[in-house]
Amino acid sequence: MHTDLVAALDIGGTKIAGALVDGHGKIAVRAQRATPAREDGETVMRAAEEVLAELAASPLWGRATTLGIGSAGPVDASAGTVSPVNVPGWRDFPLVRRVRDAAGGLPVELIGDGVAITAAEHWQGAARGHDNALCMVVSTGVGGGLVLNGRLHPGPTGNAGHIGHICVELDGDPCPCGSRGCVERIASGPNIARRAVGNGWRPGPDGDMSAAAVAAAARAGDPIAMASFARAAQALAAGIAATATLVEIDIAVIGGGVGKAGDVLFTPLRKALSDYATLSFVQRLTIAPAQMGTDAGLVGAAAAALARRTDAATV
Amino acid sequence: MHTDLVAALDIGGTKIAGALVDGHGKIAVRAQRATPAREDGETVMRAAEEVLAELAASPLWGRATTLGIGSAGPVDASAGTVSPVNVPGWRDFPLVRRVRDAAGGLPVELIGDGVAITAAEHWQGAARGHDNALCMVVSTGVGGGLVLNGRLHPGPTGNAGHIGHICVELDGDPCPCGSRGCVERIASGPNIARRAVGNGWRPGPDGDMSAAAVAAAARAGDPIAMASFARAAQALAAGIAATATLVEIDIAVIGGGVGKAGDVLFTPLRKALSDYATLSFVQRLTIAPAQMGTDAGLVGAAAAALARRTDAATV
Repeated sequence: MHTDLVAALDIGGTKIAGALVDGHGKIAVRAQRATPAREDGETVMRAAEEVLAELAASPLWGRATTLGIGSAGPVDASAGTVSPVNVPGWRDFPLVRRVRDAAGGLPVELIGDGVAITAAEHWQGAARGHDNALCMVVSTGVGGGLVLNGRLHPGPTGNAGHIGHICVELDGDPCPCGSRGCVERIASGPNIARRAVGNGWRPGPDGDMSAAAVAAAARAGDPIAMASFARAAQALAAGIAATATLVEIDIAVIGGGVGKAGDVLFTPLRKALSDYATLSFVQRLTIAPAQMGTDAGLVGAAAAALARRTDAATV
Repeated sequence: MHTDLVAALDIGGTKIAGALVDGHGKIAVRAQRATPAREDGETVMRAAEEVLAELAASPLWGRATTLGIGSAGPVDASAGTVSPVNVPGWRDFPLVRRVRDAAGGLPVELIGDGVAITAAEHWQGAARGHDNALCMVVSTGVGGGLVLNGRLHPGPTGNAGHIGHICVELDGDPCPCGSRGCVERIASGPNIARRAVGNGWRPGPDGDMSAAAVAAAARAGDPIAMASFARAAQALAAGIAATATLVEIDIAVIGGGVGKAGDVLFTPLRKALSDYATLSFVQRLTIAPAQMGTDAGLVGAAAAALARRTDAATV
């Protein structure tokens, strides 16, 4: 049915990936550059333009009818600009206009990277068939996105679902965002590792002090490592329960490096959720691991652009 | 344009109010009974039926084309049932079916009372013209509702926006809902008063230990009373900031008895909001007092029923 393709860009602090995606979420062509994150804004843009040029060189490019961008945030979809925390050369950078120019005038849809991953999980992954869902990435940071009433909810600026920066501890530790006690400040990988080390956990002979190493120790029964994951689970549970209480979701999907810890995270998370999600209408909430892999950002950016094109056609 | 009317019921633990409302939110006919909240379910239903019978006796009744119910929660709009905390005789009570039968088969729309008040503020009050809004009632309890993308967001069960029961203190005091550290557990009127008394505040000769008395003391400069309001403001700010971060809202409207405290609440609330609402896309959020009076529940129930009827007509 869909012979059209969607062009997609996934822009992060490490790499800029691009693809042509078909109507079933399959990637037909891909291109990638490292993000020159410490360079000036024009140098970063040149990397994005090279990705687009490589896609445009494909004989399939002519079938692309729209283009989706998922970008590290914050983004401002209403202004068409991005200000990724880890790309200091881009502050209110007019990415939508620049990409539209580089892509021969294709319509461009911009969303945050957490929203893009949510679009992918809803289209092809663990949130498929769910009309009200929260999808999260728990990794170096904690991000997310929402599906409400069967549709992606990016919000006016494309940042909705930013669960990493809701406060679950009024008097908690200061967060780099300027607030305190944020979910990310407690549950991100670096914070899981920091808390374990602070409480006396020591790495093995390889000196690995990552959250993955803490997860391995927790799996082997180390009580300090287990406690650090339990605290992260508590913060995530309070954030998920808050989301369910505010907008009514029936599933929370968790991906990212910390999400890969498996039972070390999911067992205390399910327990903590029963402590914090108590109202009748949030009790049916389930938790599931993410199903989309590293292409989630590209597939989700394509999904968002497709959905917007469909909306426009039906108006 | 609208010569049709909407029938509305506002069901609380103290009273059951009914009205016929016109297309501009004006109340043409009203009826009311005390809620026999301690009686069995059929006795409570009889009071609701008397309200409906009184409306039906009006010559205007024939112009009513739909009926909206705003009820104390939790409600379950998907099942058509209500279980108001303060009406123990109603547990999963099939209110929608019973009201439809009593109202001669009119289509019936059920939402929670916080959602109803939100519909009223969005239609006629402080949230008018805002496409993304949180409306709250801060009183004996703390409730609320959401407008997203220009439309009421009741959620599948009609309870969305229940900001009183999101956790802002992971290790906070146990809340009657079963969770801990909820916004309501810190910011409701009774909790403001309890905290002031616990910290040494003493009422005047009239012995009034209500939140209104604490507000009067705070206005007169009593530091303990001011601190109790400041803590409530902090919890409300964290909850409002969480909502803005999750769904992107541009206004939070605050009503209810505690909301009437004025600057004693709003001054520390605006300060606390600047502490907790830090991400670029939530900084433009404004706070405003509610504008709708005691008829908000009726007007909002009517608004929700009207909106549903309009949706059905355009599908």
